[in-house]
Amino acid sequence: MHSPQALIATKRDRRTHSSEEIRDLVRGLVDGSIKDYQASSWLMAAYLNGLDSAETTELTLAMADSGERLDLSGLPKPWVDKHSTGGVGDKVTLVALPLMAACGITAVKMSGRGLGITGGTIDKLESIPGFRTDLSPSELVAQANQFGIALTGQSPNLAPADKILYGLRDATATVDCVPLIVSSILSKKIAGGAETVVLDVKCGSGAFMRDLGAARNLAAWLKDIGTRAGLNLRILITDMDQPLGSAIGNSLEVLEALSVLRGDVKSSVGRLAIKLVALALEASGTEASLEAAEARCVLAIQSGGALTKAREWLTAQGADPAFVDQAESKLPLGPVVRKVFIHSSGYLARADAGALGQLVVDLGGGRAHKEDLIDHGVGIQIHVAVGDEITDNEHCATVFAKTEEEADEAAQRVLASLYVTATPTEARPLVIEVL
Amino acid sequence: MHSPQALIATKRDRRTHSSEEIRDLVRGLVDGSIKDYQASSWLMAAYLNGLDSAETTELTLAMADSGERLDLSGLPKPWVDKHSTGGVGDKVTLVALPLMAACGITAVKMSGRGLGITGGTIDKLESIPGFRTDLSPSELVAQANQFGIALTGQSPNLAPADKILYGLRDATATVDCVPLIVSSILSKKIAGGAETVVLDVKCGSGAFMRDLGAARNLAAWLKDIGTRAGLNLRILITDMDQPLGSAIGNSLEVLEALSVLRGDVKSSVGRLAIKLVALALEASGTEASLEAAEARCVLAIQSGGALTKAREWLTAQGADPAFVDQAESKLPLGPVVRKVFIHSSGYLARADAGALGQLVVDLGGGRAHKEDLIDHGVGIQIHVAVGDEITDNEHCATVFAKTEEEADEAAQRVLASLYVTATPTEARPLVIEVL
Repeated sequence: MHSPQALIATKRDRRTHSSEEIRDLVRGLVDGSIKDYQASSWLMAAYLNGLDSAETTELTLAMADSGERLDLSGLPKPWVDKHSTGGVGDKVTLVALPLMAACGITAVKMSGRGLGITGGTIDKLESIPGFRTDLSPSELVAQANQFGIALTGQSPNLAPADKILYGLRDATATVDCVPLIVSSILSKKIAGGAETVVLDVKCGSGAFMRDLGAARNLAAWLKDIGTRAGLNLRILITDMDQPLGSAIGNSLEVLEALSVLRGDVKSSVGRLAIKLVALALEASGTEASLEAAEARCVLAIQSGGALTKAREWLTAQGADPAFVDQAESKLPLGPVVRKVFIHSSGYLARADAGALGQLVVDLGGGRAHKEDLIDHGVGIQIHVAVGDEITDNEHCATVFAKTEEEADEAAQRVLASLYVTATPTEARPLVIEVL
Repeated sequence: MHSPQALIATKRDRRTHSSEEIRDLVRGLVDGSIKDYQASSWLMAAYLNGLDSAETTELTLAMADSGERLDLSGLPKPWVDKHSTGGVGDKVTLVALPLMAACGITAVKMSGRGLGITGGTIDKLESIPGFRTDLSPSELVAQANQFGIALTGQSPNLAPADKILYGLRDATATVDCVPLIVSSILSKKIAGGAETVVLDVKCGSGAFMRDLGAARNLAAWLKDIGTRAGLNLRILITDMDQPLGSAIGNSLEVLEALSVLRGDVKSSVGRLAIKLVALALEASGTEASLEAAEARCVLAIQSGGALTKAREWLTAQGADPAFVDQAESKLPLGPVVRKVFIHSSGYLARADAGALGQLVVDLGGGRAHKEDLIDHGVGIQIHVAVGDEITDNEHCATVFAKTEEEADEAAQRVLASLYVTATPTEARPLVIEVL
């Protein structure tokens, strides 16, 4: 065993950790022999002096091994996990999971709650009356076996070392460090039993990575470390300068996902879900080419197969079987609904995803702090997208708020986040790169 | 108020702290709003990215202000504090304080306990039956007023921010950082009411600074920051490659100090004490020249004035008035006393202070951990010094141990720490530099 001080000194002095040292570090975090003040000193040394690929791979694997590991090997192959680094209006999981199941691959996923401007899939699903997000590992596996689709919240027993470091990083200004981000994401995937993973790295004002260079670097690290750690990975870099789709806010995003599953394959959410699932089909060897995989996805939506899978899934996890067909009346919404009109004409040059995401947090639809309660009914729909022609007095957005006052303020803030120019702007492609 | 994360991020990103930020940091440490895991992250950022002179000065002053401050302004001027960075066999304080008082300056000091190979003055004084090391601030001031000399242990209410950082540094591999060392030393001096300070930076195998370049750098920083913080400083760099004087171990060092006070002005302990006190006399304006100051010190010892002051001092703090004249029988010693003979002839080239200091810790005379209890009676006397001619079978050392077995092992280790060569080696000067 290396002492905590010796482990810290190694990284402080820019030396490379042996795999034994990384294992000692992770073991010490979990058994309490490395104190949180020692872990945070190591974190700052790692932030400033870096971890190389071998160290990051070992950290990923050691954190994955630091608690229980979910065993999915009894599932009919292939099973696929899907992960996003988080963005504003990102409800793709709600579409992609039933689409995967409809295309014959098993979709199993653990999701998190939202913090800050990026929403969490668990929060969105909790808009649905009766829906359970606390499946036990055995329930998760049994449901995946029966329906080909299952999703639950993060288990506290999976990757406990990551939970310790993750909590400290937020408090010690060591969040923005690629090797630590990568090992945190991938250790949870591995502990959750993942084999093939499709990973969406969001880039823009509504994402953690605002800059394309930084997103590319993160994507390359994820690919490298994930591959070294034995995962079969496909990674996309996608735009998050404008919100994804029209809805931001929990109930509103569930409604938008259902509308995509009902056949809206041309929408941005539909296109991204199809791209992700096609990559999953190709990566898992289910389809030989991406073109064939995409065609299969389009068909699975247009035939109603994906919507049927969604109905099975939501019902299996506790929703009313009638929910999918009566969602508008079953979901909490508003109560104050305010149409927003734009007083300008030209072309939409920018819809600031960061500003709109923050607005929904401030309406009560997201969390500023981990312990905050959220309101599932509030949010915004944006009816215009970058590149659209805008006419004066156009109905550009709809606000769902708790009070008239909050709706008034939100309407002003929506307008302030939309930039109209006289000449058209070409929007950045939705899918910027695939690794 | 700056958030803990913002303060950490500033140093993480190599930016310079404003004085307001430093004050927020220190206030947060003491009021608990900055958690220990946040402080240790900041410490690592400061270790790796440094603190400049202005930041270090502000940190020193803010830590000095973080608790009570001792007000010595009622004392007859001048009063002088003396500090050593710690070495093996360094009992100079026990000589220098009565010598200062005998020369007409007021000696007031807070001392610490030993940790690792460097002993602490409080531990040495606690060898003396009845001696109190827990004077309250008002007792300290009253005694200094009456006798011109007073010494106590560190008050927990002085510089509490330093205590927090000091404790964390030991646990987080951030000890060896010059701005943090300097602010820790000087903040305690300032909180303790110091005005003129004579500071002994030890350099060699028995000291924290092993290398002369590192010791010079520390001395220059101490001089710069101390001066900026308003102290009147004299700094010496002195040798710690061999132990200072002959005794290592608590009772043995008290005996050696008394023997110097009885007139042994030529011994290394006597010479260093005289140099330090002469600098104090000159720095405080009591003597115009160092030569005159040194002559006054020699006279104060040879006349018995310094010994009289020691007797007054020890008695004032609870020792038996007869102690000074009966010290050998009043101090715990041994019980096993073993003479060590060297089987080699030539010249002593090295007496490894680090190894000998560690030996006394292992005999029970020092602490490996803060909470360890120590044995005041154990230790070593080394009867030879670097440069001395050695004859075969010479009585080179005496070991005082708890058991025969420990005495046997210690005798072997003493011999292993003494290096004899055929040609003479010139010892490094005791006082290497004065700043």
